[in-house]
Amino acid sequence: MSDVRVTVWNEYRHEREDEEVAEVYPDGIHEAIAEGYEERGYETQTATLDDPEHGLTEAVLDETDVLTWWGHRAHDEVDDEVVDRVVERVLDGMGLLVLHSGHYSKPFKRLMGTRCSLKWRESGEKERLWVTDPSHPIADGLDEYVEIPEAEMYGEHFDVPAPEQLVFTSWFEGGEVFRSGCCYARGSGRVFYFRPGHETYPIYYRDDVRNVLANAAEWAAPGDGPTPTYENVDPLEDLSD
Amino acid sequence: MSDVRVTVWNEYRHEREDEEVAEVYPDGIHEAIAEGYEERGYETQTATLDDPEHGLTEAVLDETDVLTWWGHRAHDEVDDEVVDRVVERVLDGMGLLVLHSGHYSKPFKRLMGTRCSLKWRESGEKERLWVTDPSHPIADGLDEYVEIPEAEMYGEHFDVPAPEQLVFTSWFEGGEVFRSGCCYARGSGRVFYFRPGHETYPIYYRDDVRNVLANAAEWAAPGDGPTPTYENVDPLEDLSD
Amino acid sequence: MSDVRVTVWNEYRHEREDEEVAEVYPDGIHEAIAEGYEERGYETQTATLDDPEHGLTEAVLDETDVLTWWGHRAHDEVDDEVVDRVVERVLDGMGLLVLHSGHYSKPFKRLMGTRCSLKWRESGEKERLWVTDPSHPIADGLDEYVEIPEAEMYGEHFDVPAPEQLVFTSWFEGGEVFRSGCCYARGSGRVFYFRPGHETYPIYYRDDVRNVLANAAEWAAPGDGPTPTYENVDPLEDLSD
Amino acid sequence: MSDVRVTVWNEYRHEREDEEVAEVYPDGIHEAIAEGYEERGYETQTATLDDPEHGLTEAVLDETDVLTWWGHRAHDEVDDEVVDRVVERVLDGMGLLVLHSGHYSKPFKRLMGTRCSLKWRESGEKERLWVTDPSHPIADGLDEYVEIPEAEMYGEHFDVPAPEQLVFTSWFEGGEVFRSGCCYARGSGRVFYFRPGHETYPIYYRDDVRNVLANAAEWAAPGDGPTPTYENVDPLEDLSD
Repeated sequence: MSDVRVTVWNEYRHEREDEEVAEVYPDGIHEAIAEGYEERGYETQTATLDDPEHGLTEAVLDETDVLTWWGHRAHDEVDDEVVDRVVERVLDGMGLLVLHSGHYSKPFKRLMGTRCSLKWRESGEKERLWVTDPSHPIADGLDEYVEIPEAEMYGEHFDVPAPEQLVFTSWFEGGEVFRSGCCYARGSGRVFYFRPGHETYPIYYRDDVRNVLANAAEWAAPGDGPTPTYENVDPLEDLSD
Repeated sequence: MSDVRVTVWNEYRHEREDEEVAEVYPDGIHEAIAEGYEERGYETQTATLDDPEHGLTEAVLDETDVLTWWGHRAHDEVDDEVVDRVVERVLDGMGLLVLHSGHYSKPFKRLMGTRCSLKWRESGEKERLWVTDPSHPIADGLDEYVEIPEAEMYGEHFDVPAPEQLVFTSWFEGGEVFRSGCCYARGSGRVFYFRPGHETYPIYYRDDVRNVLANAAEWAAPGDGPTPTYENVDPLEDLSD
Repeated sequence: MSDVRVTVWNEYRHEREDEEVAEVYPDGIHEAIAEGYEERGYETQTATLDDPEHGLTEAVLDETDVLTWWGHRAHDEVDDEVVDRVVERVLDGMGLLVLHSGHYSKPFKRLMGTRCSLKWRESGEKERLWVTDPSHPIADGLDEYVEIPEAEMYGEHFDVPAPEQLVFTSWFEGGEVFRSGCCYARGSGRVFYFRPGHETYPIYYRDDVRNVLANAAEWAAPGDGPTPTYENVDPLEDLSD
Repeated sequence: MSDVRVTVWNEYRHEREDEEVAEVYPDGIHEAIAEGYEERGYETQTATLDDPEHGLTEAVLDETDVLTWWGHRAHDEVDDEVVDRVVERVLDGMGLLVLHSGHYSKPFKRLMGTRCSLKWRESGEKERLWVTDPSHPIADGLDEYVEIPEAEMYGEHFDVPAPEQLVFTSWFEGGEVFRSGCCYARGSGRVFYFRPGHETYPIYYRDDVRNVLANAAEWAAPGDGPTPTYENVDPLEDLSD
């Protein structure tokens, strides 16, 4: 059991429009991710693009400690008002886990300040996510690498700020590497980018991937640190002496 | 002599509207900063908010290696199209030096992804900028600290991503500290935030401050690194075997 | 209650030899620190320089998740074999919290690779430890700063590698700043340097300081990440093709 | 022409004892590396293990801005007094470039504070060093990756502190990745670890590798930053008020 409350957001278009995807994720990618959290004792809800306010109302976010984000083809349809809301929540402490093609999502690009571009190839090739920081709690319970037999390739250069901790670095059969597990602090919140998870591969059913997502939720969950004030302040003592 | 071409941008409103400021910077803050660069052999131009396109046309930016940015009361008047242009240039390699109240400028907030808030006090108090990274070229030629006898205070928490290198940390007489010299890489470009420089103190006439700005321009100037491609790529070898 | 087992190490010389120190810490600094952990539900033991093997036998370390280290005048008397043992344990995952004058201890210098020098002044002056990373769990439960009315001053430059996360930055009345809460990963272990704690000031009785030490123990405790192997390895597939 | 003075240090045993190595580097690895620097206008000297004081006398180091280090089988024969001397020089500002199997050299392990272990395989397999920080001057003049057709493999986990800037990440044909270009600041000095360079592959004759070494020498060369003092200091003002 965890007391971290997770909201799983998904674009949920591929699964409804593409038969090949629907076979892999018949109930949507969000349900597969949510199932992983539920198995591990997390209070979980889901939200999708076509819900009112994309399912991310103030009320939903009030009950969200960590938000996971999967999107791909419809990033532009995410309303800027909702993006503002999500970004503000992160800066105030909510955790954000950005998955795979979510690298191009509006909230991630806003929080990174860069283009978040990369190379790619849809080739069903082998990927190995090597743990490059064994001291990091997101790597808890893992072996030295996670091997995914068929993956979409993402390759460097990944145009993000240098990760503050780099938990995973991927090797791809076809010749590329990728910084696949990237930790950031933004304001009072924490952001984790995790690479695996294409819509045509059953990656979110894997136990190791679900363990990473659970570890990442624990790591990204809001702490109890100070709420900084940003204002005109008095000096400690009279400076006129 | 340096072959780095610097463009000094200034909001240039305080100096024209406020007598006290005009006494300190009769030709505008930009001219004082530009003078420092010219003394040190830099090819320098200036641009201000009320110039057409804020003086930051594509043609001007084509001849700019490093842009310095001072703004305060009119951040919102900076046109988003110009902000986009500046941010794109930085991601493509142009250096950006953000000065003092420029922490709230649109380009800086966009590149940081955070609110960039802080505490402040206009009290003419003493500041010491301690060099916390003596190996960094931006500290070249300095003593262990730069002491500014009268400064506006900026205090933590400074809501920016953790600097990738922290060159200066400020002490203020009234009880605060501040990360005053913050280095970032963004895309192929480099950003340096430098705290000193209020409009009512003659800080940009100081030799040590001008040396820091010159060092920072050298550090932030575009390199000759690879221009990454972001596209669908072929594998090194046929993956079908 | 926590399941993190803490061993509190202390040089324990000042308290036995100096009346002024004995008044502040009659049972030794280690007992004051240990009391803070016990109050917070930690299984705690203590060890001191003059114990056999300095109290840090393999058996003791086998039951230690996090070791705290306070030393000052007798760093050189710590046996190199014990130092090796402690350093190896850290690289294998044990947490290490280095306190105040422990900056010059052998294990800390070995793990940092630098001289760990700093400026100092014994003046009983005011210190404010500003939280510079409110997203960090070591800052949980704190206000924006911890104010210590009488402290020994430590000033920059602090000759350590740039902290991987900088949780606290201190302000001192007399004109200095200091990076006072510094996080590092080393091998599979984690190291936290925390500045406060001179032998003549009752700093380790403070609730806020004890809370920081408890937070730091949680952060530094060994995780369950992979144990890397370092060896000659076979390729994924035959490379002779 | 550069005004950076480079000293190239080599163990110089393989080349004299192993015919296969002697064919690749008949005058020793140091001469091949030195040739690359000389071609690019650097004042260069060499030093080897079997020279008196390993060729690294105080006089030689007085004329050294950047020291490159290649060693493999005889790390233990490097005298601790010379190691101390080198480490002290680095902390005082001298640049250090550690090459390939130098990861296990005494100076590197001392400056890192970790075991510096890794996986390996002598298989003559293909390596691609991807530039993961295109803004970094060490990547100047390079393409997106450097491809080495036959290399010894080094694989993660590489047991070093997280690099402060990560310039290269290697892909290996057999399934591993490696952080191959790692930047560190230590004291007033800078350290760069660069992976390529096995004794049986002609890697140090390559123009791209020589360009990297030249860029790295420029980056690591001593600056003109402040020389910190570490002592008992007076307060800015009388604290007794």
